[in-house]
Amino acid sequence: MTRRIKCVVAYDGTHFSGYQIQPGKRTVQGEIEEVLKRMHKGKAVRVTASGRTDAGVHAYGQVIHFDTALVLSPEQWKRALNAQLPDDIAVRSAEEADSTFHARFSAKAKEYRYKVWTAADRDVFRRHYCAWHPYPLHIGAMDEALRQLIGTHDFTSFCSAKTEMEDRIRTIYQAEVETDGSMMEFRFIGSGFLYNMVRIIVGTVLEIGQGRRSPADIAALLAAKDRRLAGPTAPAEGLYLWRVYYDDEFFAVS
Amino acid sequence: MTRRIKCVVAYDGTHFSGYQIQPGKRTVQGEIEEVLKRMHKGKAVRVTASGRTDAGVHAYGQVIHFDTALVLSPEQWKRALNAQLPDDIAVRSAEEADSTFHARFSAKAKEYRYKVWTAADRDVFRRHYCAWHPYPLHIGAMDEALRQLIGTHDFTSFCSAKTEMEDRIRTIYQAEVETDGSMMEFRFIGSGFLYNMVRIIVGTVLEIGQGRRSPADIAALLAAKDRRLAGPTAPAEGLYLWRVYYDDEFFAVS
Repeated sequence: MTRRIKCVVAYDGTHFSGYQIQPGKRTVQGEIEEVLKRMHKGKAVRVTASGRTDAGVHAYGQVIHFDTALVLSPEQWKRALNAQLPDDIAVRSAEEADSTFHARFSAKAKEYRYKVWTAADRDVFRRHYCAWHPYPLHIGAMDEALRQLIGTHDFTSFCSAKTEMEDRIRTIYQAEVETDGSMMEFRFIGSGFLYNMVRIIVGTVLEIGQGRRSPADIAALLAAKDRRLAGPTAPAEGLYLWRVYYDDEFFAVS
Repeated sequence: MTRRIKCVVAYDGTHFSGYQIQPGKRTVQGEIEEVLKRMHKGKAVRVTASGRTDAGVHAYGQVIHFDTALVLSPEQWKRALNAQLPDDIAVRSAEEADSTFHARFSAKAKEYRYKVWTAADRDVFRRHYCAWHPYPLHIGAMDEALRQLIGTHDFTSFCSAKTEMEDRIRTIYQAEVETDGSMMEFRFIGSGFLYNMVRIIVGTVLEIGQGRRSPADIAALLAAKDRRLAGPTAPAEGLYLWRVYYDDEFFAVS
């Protein structure tokens, strides 16, 4: 009999070529599957995640599942995996899930955060964990821009031109920015996010904060469905897959 | 005419073989001297720091000085150095100093901080910036131990057996620990610190916090003048050279 194990996983994306396994590259999936293979006496165990993350992108709450014939308690799974994983991947929690649970298809919503260090001086201790954007920003204008992204829209203008997905309609439930001194944090909760969508939204909203665009541009950008009209893709190091929601609890935070 | 430039420098020690230049190794001094050499058309410029830091040890406020014939404003020095330094070294401030100023010999006191992550789970984002010590700690006992270190003592028991310095008498003005959730931060201000002194003090005080030693042991350890009797050397990644004091301002904080 196999059991399905669900884990919440954090990783520092700095030294990975992204989440998804690729031959000859160091990836998060590759490292986790390697450990599981050792635990299963050389038998390959396929890991399924809520979605991929790019090179340099972090996760605080990536969710994965895998099927196993091993009988371990959730606490034993967590301990065994953490003992063997490299120190830039950590299992935050493990639990036995229903066989119908699927890390990707059962997800109801995802939360991404994007951190920006806005001080004039770069901070050597934050260089891998925030984008550095040392320019004065008008928070009111950014708030106004973010509010217009909430709701159900075609996000073609805000995803990479390389996006293969045909359906670019997504719902954003929450889009906000908070500052704490020189640290700025964007928070997005949505039904799903297209390729580079959070990074392009942040790149565009930072231009609005700098006064290089108007908050009113958002509606026109959404309507245009043209990636070339939006702002630049903000760098990977500021982005965190923060949480994956599998029930309707996420409505409580908005 | 040469001018003496004083800089406050931060660095992430993770990827350095320490501060001091060594042939074939990546060092903080080596990187700074390389940039200065380029700025001086190939002429070597020797940099003097307040003191060395070991491999993996960080600095938030290391102080250096060098002499130069170039005429740049403090703001130009800061900008020119930061533009060429690698992204794990940053000049926080630059100023022209009196020719009698010496980064090492003029120092009146130094402040070190030591960060410990005490949560049961390791944190992938803090692994290079804190020691991880997931054990219950009795803060009252640690406070009591730290208080006994304040004052003028022979710190032979609290420095590496490899210490070359004959005179092991130092004065500690401030020794305290603060917690903020699972983050614990030790702060030490002293007239000077021997080799590994802060890390051995922290290693010993953590043992006291765990109840493996009594706070009263500190007096006996100081009296014994024997490194073997003190606790282990806490790991490099938690240690920060935080500030160097060149006048008596440091009395204000104690």
